[in-house]
Amino acid sequence: MSERGGQPMTGTGVSRVEIPADSLFGPENMPYGVFAPPDGDFRVGCRLGDMVLDVAALLGDPVFARPELNGFLAQGHERWREVRERLRALADTALPTDAVYPVATVRMALPVRIGDYVDFYASIDHATNLGRLLRPDSAPLLPNWRHLPVGYHGRAGTVVVSDTPVIRPRGQRRTASGTPDFGPSQRLDIEAELGFVVGCGSPLGVPVTVDAFTEHVFGVALVNDWSARDIQAWEYQPLGPFLGKSFTTSLSAWITPLAALTRARVPLPTQHPQPLPYLRGTEDFGLDIDLAVSWNGDVVAHPPYARMYWSPAQMLAHLTANGASIRPGDLYASGTISGPGPSQRGSFIELSWGGTQPVMVNDQTRTFLADGDEVTITATAPGTEGRRIGLGEVGGAILPARDT
Amino acid sequence: MSERGGQPMTGTGVSRVEIPADSLFGPENMPYGVFAPPDGDFRVGCRLGDMVLDVAALLGDPVFARPELNGFLAQGHERWREVRERLRALADTALPTDAVYPVATVRMALPVRIGDYVDFYASIDHATNLGRLLRPDSAPLLPNWRHLPVGYHGRAGTVVVSDTPVIRPRGQRRTASGTPDFGPSQRLDIEAELGFVVGCGSPLGVPVTVDAFTEHVFGVALVNDWSARDIQAWEYQPLGPFLGKSFTTSLSAWITPLAALTRARVPLPTQHPQPLPYLRGTEDFGLDIDLAVSWNGDVVAHPPYARMYWSPAQMLAHLTANGASIRPGDLYASGTISGPGPSQRGSFIELSWGGTQPVMVNDQTRTFLADGDEVTITATAPGTEGRRIGLGEVGGAILPARDT
Repeated sequence: MSERGGQPMTGTGVSRVEIPADSLFGPENMPYGVFAPPDGDFRVGCRLGDMVLDVAALLGDPVFARPELNGFLAQGHERWREVRERLRALADTALPTDAVYPVATVRMALPVRIGDYVDFYASIDHATNLGRLLRPDSAPLLPNWRHLPVGYHGRAGTVVVSDTPVIRPRGQRRTASGTPDFGPSQRLDIEAELGFVVGCGSPLGVPVTVDAFTEHVFGVALVNDWSARDIQAWEYQPLGPFLGKSFTTSLSAWITPLAALTRARVPLPTQHPQPLPYLRGTEDFGLDIDLAVSWNGDVVAHPPYARMYWSPAQMLAHLTANGASIRPGDLYASGTISGPGPSQRGSFIELSWGGTQPVMVNDQTRTFLADGDEVTITATAPGTEGRRIGLGEVGGAILPARDT
Repeated sequence: MSERGGQPMTGTGVSRVEIPADSLFGPENMPYGVFAPPDGDFRVGCRLGDMVLDVAALLGDPVFARPELNGFLAQGHERWREVRERLRALADTALPTDAVYPVATVRMALPVRIGDYVDFYASIDHATNLGRLLRPDSAPLLPNWRHLPVGYHGRAGTVVVSDTPVIRPRGQRRTASGTPDFGPSQRLDIEAELGFVVGCGSPLGVPVTVDAFTEHVFGVALVNDWSARDIQAWEYQPLGPFLGKSFTTSLSAWITPLAALTRARVPLPTQHPQPLPYLRGTEDFGLDIDLAVSWNGDVVAHPPYARMYWSPAQMLAHLTANGASIRPGDLYASGTISGPGPSQRGSFIELSWGGTQPVMVNDQTRTFLADGDEVTITATAPGTEGRRIGLGEVGGAILPARDT
């Protein structure tokens, strides 16, 4: 049995967790995170309503007493199912009060120790918008785009948990003369994305098929891939984005298990041409998840994940098609989620059309991020009986560039 | 005191390590690696001549009993200096025979648990050659190249220790019709590079200056960044290399401390235009290291590291200029090392000029790698009194693509 503050669990009371009727975190959601109670160390928690369950205390498995989900992830999808069933059963019972904490009283940490971080570019509307903005004189989609999920590696070591402040990066920007100067980014942007957390790994040389997706991917998070567009525009030829992205990437504190999203699964939009055989599967892995982007409290966009061209199962099959191994805790993200409508765009470079069409934010015209700005991305998916389940939000505020 | 096989150390003999007169691993080198003796677990070793010293057994610090250098790296540059001095002093004495193993009898593991892996593109001759090959109708160097060390993130999880076999990757390649097919790479290549292992990390938001290089970087290794040119050519627009590189990257088993390379430090070639202030320093960090590329035992190239345009200190300053943090065990590599001469090129796409000018290998004409081929990269640097010191070699053999 668990102990806390020297008191054995049997010395405390028990009570049921009351779940508000409109909660996005009912028993069909139950995402995992890493939390610390006011007087304790970081450990694995499971969110239920407005409370956090101390999973190690409830289940007695020391893998949950660690400050990361990696050990649990490595136990594999049968164990994920078993733990989810046990926690859902416990949610219907009275729980020891020293194994349950109000979410408002705990601190949250990065839920996984991330091995490799890959970012895709899987929204056809986003890729088309960026193509029009950056290469106005040629076809917006490059020739490879409809044949493979374009992606690249990002910096795993600068992925931070939601609500970590974002320091405005400095870097080289091209000036009007064509030569660069160095200073704080003037075009600091967001990218609203979904992140997929790898649970069970695969060895070198063995690709993961599209249909093996649910055996390898544990769950889904929200990602804000903060981007310095001026730094990125100057540096990215020919090897891709680097410092324009690597300063900070924010991850939601809660990872929603794939098992909670069965009602969100939908067919993909039509893919034309038909993908090569290694990118085909028998199951639908489109996801009907609605995002909302809030800028200083004002909702400025509603990106629809269901419009994404490439599925997360195809992304993983592509990532491993060359034999690359994956590890528990690897993270890959969808790339910016944008829909066809002007209010469905998941980045400010799209919303403001390259800074030329300012966005109204709290009755002010804005283009890119100012110091002190706060951005929060939220998302919901279909649950049972018309209810919705929520992904954990991802938020951050911009701090001024540091003096050097 | 150490024990081995149940015998206390005092029960064994002592003897001095005999170092062959022409050894590249004399007491002024003493690189670190992770080895397992025939009957034991992986642990930190230090190479002296043809022997490996068991550092945990000799120094009694449990940080060396781990199967990775990361703990030692995190102790910082003062500790690196102190340990090096103690081991160099011990090299002059008789050592317990159960703390010393012939290098031919041990197994080697990846020496560091790699956090993030970044690959640069710092050779002006390589970048010029690739520009001429891939963009024959425009200026070979892109506008940003002389202003910043171009780089991108690679896959840390597929970095393997020297002598790990390399499975030929499958992937999408553009066919003559313009649409892709999927199959084993037909243009499998090498990239001969130097790798720099980060010892002491830095926090988010705090750039590392050029002159702080030796406080943060522990040592140097050889890297072979195996590359599938056909996969890379089709996928890399607009976000850079991905599956064409991520299947395998080989790292030498031995990390030579920067402190062993003081006599290799030379001024950089002239940089024009002068770099921006954040890329300037007061010390020389060019490195006079000569590489040799052996293809099935036949030396086909001698890339000169001294010709590199950007220094490793500038690479690290650039990598962190946006505030990105670094961690002990991060690895960044120079990019392919090529000199101006035709026999100084560190990749086969350059040596064979895009496959149009076959290379003679053991009296056969060759362009890219065939199954069964072996490539070994070695390197030496100036020591004292006209001697040379060696970096640990990095080798690998090509296995056929797996059936899918």
